[in-house]
This record gives sequence, C-alpha cells and structure tokens, in this order.
Amino acid sequence: MAVNLVPPKPEDLLPVKGLTLGVAEAGVRKANRKDVLIMRLAEGASVAGVFTQNRFCAAPVIVCKENLARARPVRALLVNTGNANAGTGDDGLVRARLTCSELAAALACDSSQILPFSTGVIMEPLPADRIVAALPRALADCREDNWAHAAEAIMTTDTVPKACSRRIVLEGKPVTVTGMAKGAGMIHPDMATMLGYIATDAAVTPAALQHMLKLAAARSFNRITVDGDTSTNDSFMLIATGAARTPLITNETQPDYAALAAAVTEVAVWLAQAIIRDGEGATKFITVQVDGGKNEAECSQVAYAIAHSPLVKTAFFASDPNLGRLLCAIGYAGIADLDVGRVRLHLGDVQVVSGGGLDPAYREEDGQRVMQQSEITVRVELGRGSARTTVWTCDLSHDYVSINADYRS
Amino acid sequence: MAVNLVPPKPEDLLPVKGLTLGVAEAGVRKANRKDVLIMRLAEGASVAGVFTQNRFCAAPVIVCKENLARARPVRALLVNTGNANAGTGDDGLVRARLTCSELAAALACDSSQILPFSTGVIMEPLPADRIVAALPRALADCREDNWAHAAEAIMTTDTVPKACSRRIVLEGKPVTVTGMAKGAGMIHPDMATMLGYIATDAAVTPAALQHMLKLAAARSFNRITVDGDTSTNDSFMLIATGAARTPLITNETQPDYAALAAAVTEVAVWLAQAIIRDGEGATKFITVQVDGGKNEAECSQVAYAIAHSPLVKTAFFASDPNLGRLLCAIGYAGIADLDVGRVRLHLGDVQVVSGGGLDPAYREEDGQRVMQQSEITVRVELGRGSARTTVWTCDLSHDYVSINADYRS
Repeated sequence: MAVNLVPPKPEDLLPVKGLTLGVAEAGVRKANRKDVLIMRLAEGASVAGVFTQNRFCAAPVIVCKENLARARPVRALLVNTGNANAGTGDDGLVRARLTCSELAAALACDSSQILPFSTGVIMEPLPADRIVAALPRALADCREDNWAHAAEAIMTTDTVPKACSRRIVLEGKPVTVTGMAKGAGMIHPDMATMLGYIATDAAVTPAALQHMLKLAAARSFNRITVDGDTSTNDSFMLIATGAARTPLITNETQPDYAALAAAVTEVAVWLAQAIIRDGEGATKFITVQVDGGKNEAECSQVAYAIAHSPLVKTAFFASDPNLGRLLCAIGYAGIADLDVGRVRLHLGDVQVVSGGGLDPAYREEDGQRVMQQSEITVRVELGRGSARTTVWTCDLSHDYVSINADYRS
Repeated sequence: MAVNLVPPKPEDLLPVKGLTLGVAEAGVRKANRKDVLIMRLAEGASVAGVFTQNRFCAAPVIVCKENLARARPVRALLVNTGNANAGTGDDGLVRARLTCSELAAALACDSSQILPFSTGVIMEPLPADRIVAALPRALADCREDNWAHAAEAIMTTDTVPKACSRRIVLEGKPVTVTGMAKGAGMIHPDMATMLGYIATDAAVTPAALQHMLKLAAARSFNRITVDGDTSTNDSFMLIATGAARTPLITNETQPDYAALAAAVTEVAVWLAQAIIRDGEGATKFITVQVDGGKNEAECSQVAYAIAHSPLVKTAFFASDPNLGRLLCAIGYAGIADLDVGRVRLHLGDVQVVSGGGLDPAYREEDGQRVMQQSEITVRVELGRGSARTTVWTCDLSHDYVSINADYRS
C-alpha cells in the first residue's frame, strides 16, 4: 500500500509533442505483462542523462554512456523490465548492444542512436532474443498519448505507476513537461534503483539540458532513500523535443531556462517523492529536515543517519515515539564537534529535545499523536550555522522484509 | 532464536580471583528480573575501558570516563538494565553520579572509584532511587562464582546470556580470563549497543591493559554489525585483578603480554560473535571476509557495505542466492577505481563471480545449498593488493522488525 499515492489518470498525463511511446509484452521474466517500452524521438530532440555511481554498473548503463558520448541525435530509448542486465560481464554488453542494433535497423539509424535501459533481477542473462522479437509490436504501439501505459510497463516492485505533468508558458507558447519513474527498493542517492524519464517539447541545447537535469536530480532523486542500497542501473533522462517551437534555450542565465528548470524540478520532486510513497513496504512518508548546519554536507550526514537507521524506521512503522533512536542517530552521524546541548529536535509540530535531553514541555501523548500520522516531518536544528537540507524516506515494515525475501520467487 | 548459541553452563564460567559479582531486582523497568549488577574489585586491580563514539553518549559513559580519568583505584562497577540514562541531559548526570555516591558510601570509598553503566530505553529518567534501594541486596549477593547470574542480569533484548572463559598459564601459574557481554540490536563498530566485561586475575598495569583492550576491541566488538546503529551507551571494560600473583605485565613487548592478549582477544571475539548469533531476529550467522584490498580501510568499506545492505540481509533470511545484491553492494562501497573485472566472489566454497559477471561454472543449486546453511561465509577478492579484513553480521528477518517495532510496548 503506497502512502497517499494514487495512480495518475491517463488524461492528466499530457503528451509531449515530438515523443511517442509504445509498449509490448516480451516475456522477459513474467508472462502477460508489458515489459518492453520504446520512446521514439522526432528529429532535433536533445537528450541528457545521469547514471548510477555503482562500480558494478549495468551493461545498459555502460552502453547508454557510450552512445551519449558519440553525440549523435538520439532516435529512441529502449527500456525493459524483469532483467537488469547487471553483473553480466562482457556477455551483458553484447546483449545490450544487440537490442540497440536491432531497433536501429528497424528505425534505419545507427545503433549508437539508441539508448538502452534495463531494470529487474541482477546477474541473469538478458533474454535479448525475446526483447528483439517484441520490438515490432512496441513500435506499432507508439503514440504521443501513451504515457500511462509506459509508466506501467517500467514498473518492477512498484505498486503504483508514477507519472505526472506540468504545463508552463514560455514566450507566450504552451510548453509541456511530463515525466515518469519507477523504483521502490534499493533507493539511495547517486542514485536510486530507479529509472526516470522527463520530457518536454521546449527547445533546449544538450549542454543546457544536462545542466538542468543535474539541478533537478540534486533536488529530487538524490534526496531520497528507502534502504541505502544504490542500484547498478539507475538512470534519469531528460528529453527536450523542441516540437513546441519555443526559442532555443542555450544557457542557465535565460529567464526561460529558470521557468523550465522549475517545472522540470517540480516533476522530478513529485516523482522522487512518489518513489518513497511507494517504497517497499512503506506505511509512512517521512521528511527529514536538518537546519543550522555549518554546511550542507553535514546536514546531509545527519539527515541520512536518521533516514537509514533501521531502528528509527521500525519505530516509525510502529508509530512509537521512541525518540531516543532519533537522538542516537544524530549522535553517530559523524559530526565530531557536535554540541549536543544546542541540538533541537521537532517531530511534526512538537518540540522533543532541547538542552541535550527531553524538552521539559514534551508530553508522550503529543509525540504519539504525530507518530500516528502517515506523513511525518522530523526537523533537526543543529545550532551550528545556517546550512540546511531535506531528505525523504519511508518506514521499515514487515512488508519490506517480505517483499525482499520473496522477490525472486 | 539465536544462531548456534547456547547458554553457558555455570560451571564453565571460571571465577576470576579478586572479583566478585552480585545481582538484585531493582524493578528499573520490569518486575521480577535481576536488573542491577555490582562487580567488586579487590585492591590492586587495574581497569581499562573503551566507549561509544556517539556524540549523544549516555550519562553513565560520561561519568565512567571522568572517573577513570581520575586514575584512582576502581572499587566497583555498577550496571543496570532497563534504562540507558541516555539523552537525559544534566539530570541524567546527576542521577548517574547519585548511584555512584550511594554505592561508594556503602563501600567506604570515593564516588570516583565507582564506574556506572546503563543499558535499555533511551530518553527516560533513570529511576536512581530504585537502583539505590537494591544496592544492599546486590552487595549481599557478591561472590566470585556468580558470572552466570551476572550475564543474565545485563541482558536486554538478548535471548541468550553470553559469557565464556579461557585458562592459560603464565610463568607456570594458571591464569583465568572470563568475560560476558550483552547486546543484540543497535550493533555497529565503534561500538555496538553493548556492554562487555572481561576480567583476568593476571597482573597488568593500567597502560598495558588499555593497549590490550584496544587490540581486542579492534578484532572483535569493532568488527560486528547487526543494523549499523551505533549506540549511546557502548562500553567495553577489561579488568586485571592481579590476584593470580603472576609477574606484572607492563608493556606489549613481553611474552606474557602476548599470551594474555591472545586469550583476552579470543574471549572478546567469542562474545562479539555471540552478540551477532543473538542479533535481533537473526537466523543466519554471516562472516564477510574481504581480501586483496590496497589497505584495510577499503576492505572494511566493502565488508560493511555488504553487512549493512538490507537487501543482502533479507536475501540471506530468505536463503535466496540473489547474488546480484552482493555484487551491487561491492559496487557502491565507494572504491572509485575498482576494476570489477578483477573482483571474485565466493559464497562458502562456491565461486560465484569472476570477470565482472557470474562465474561460468556457477550453478544456482550450489548457491542454494550454501544459502540454506545457518553459518555462511561470503568471501570477496578485490584483486588490488594484499590487505584483508573480516566482519561478522546476521540476516534481516521479520523478527527484527517485530522486536524493534514492539520494544517499548
């Protein structure tokens, strides 16, 4: 049960001119489910990407980076679920490239103009033949108003498809930003086990688009954690088709850049939070806000110490204001000269800690009331400076264990 | 259900001359259980200690360090369970000191000669009055052959008391080393939520004893993790009563030092492993061995990335050779220039990974066979150098969530 997250209505997902999407059943892992997605780009589109920092990055990530580095116009993105093609060595690269070259043949382009993505089980050979066999059906399905099916096709342990749209006006012309993402476990900054795709019909140069993508990632997908595991396959792509025929955005000083970046970031934050709301076994959506640090890095250390603590996360699951666990996590976050006497801790609107211990005005029933809520904000004031950061996470429940103990079976 | 860990037979726990132990029911948190322990030291004993690195360290830890710093002979250690006296601010210090001064009065010594220890719930006021009221009964119970009751009295979520003894011969005289520990969750290096006490009747100077303690801690309690949470209260104490009347050990170059340090380390490793065997919800005992690193630090990074991964731990719980999760953890451990093509991974006696992917000879049924075992060794060869390290951990089960969701209720 995702936390306050409902599937998008198909009519709320606005088509992005210059981009069509098609899905098909390839039987990669399970029968009777759409597990292959093609996103076709019209000529003139720009594509930017950021990828997992995991050293065992998956074959499709390697191929994606290689193909992007060639700087030829991208014609299509090819996504499969059910198999991550990760930890598969040289054979994995061969298989990833094979799916690209087959799609390239169908589209009469070079295989370097195809970007592959895979998500699913690690260390099993990608059934490239089945994916290739499904390509004609996915191509035949390609249309602009197919985001809802696409968002479903990329799901793995997700329980709710994740997609949303925003519309803005640039230079008097309507511009659409639509995005979708998948991911529910193995979620950690830099990056999550997640695939994220945001597209706009605005016109943006590749360099400006890459800048916009990094900005959006830093404020969204890189601020979330389910379980601290950083996947082998994470990829977040930003596509600008230019089909809205708005003036070309070339750098970050332009007002149009700011307006579009804001909309892209808003979509990215919505998707990132949706991933947490649908976190494996999640019953609570937790915002961890750390203020008053000397710098953002130490705020992040504290925020992630809290967000990663299994003890904190099980306390949230139990709706138990066992607040010492929060204090404990702050204490081991690694700020060597932290003055615990200056730390303040709020749970929702309730002040919990001051003077190195329980705030005199704190009452257990107040903490209990906040813990019962499905959306909880933990706010830590470090009392050391003016830096701040926010991280989103979820609780740790029985279902997390069940989902991950049973994933392959 | 602890993993292959049975309670020690009382007769296997050898008394340490010069040290008596007494327990009593104080009703700190629960009725009808021994929750206060006094360890009395004969004159001439040396005491060494290492403590949590958590910035929110508990009041008794602060008082312990203060009292040890005064370098007056320690006359007694006072331990309570049920309440950690952590996150309790100045009031916590007052209460910790009160229990020391009351015990000091009974023993006609200075309160700085008492070392206090607390473990249990965080951020609740220590019921010092109840502990003080129980002191006469605990003192009356003090005797040398009381280790079994003492090991029981310090338990919190432990399911099995943890204690063992070794006997060695120094200069022709028998010397005893007996130790006990508690801890089952919030276990992480530097240090675990754990209290550990090892005593010997050998004669050792405080400086040599401190050196020996750090050595033993580095090889035992600082090599384990249940959940990555570092407690506010961790304390590991080494006591040398000198009552065996062996020659005084003054520095680490002496053969006697080496012999005694080996026995102390052996007891410490046994206790540290016992904590993991009794890890909250543990069903598997996992040894993570990382070889071939450039230095021990990077071996540790990889070992802890594996040992902390909830996905790896749930796969062990499920007996599922979902080995990609191991590979993934190695990949995100933070070795930026790791050549994944050189990494080898063994699960028990089965080679799993070579050449950046699944070893050609690997068969799923072999992995399955190892995963069914209750004691599993994961061995990673990084192929970068000759450094190595070992870490012990357990799996992540439904019971871990249950235990920590229900702890306070």
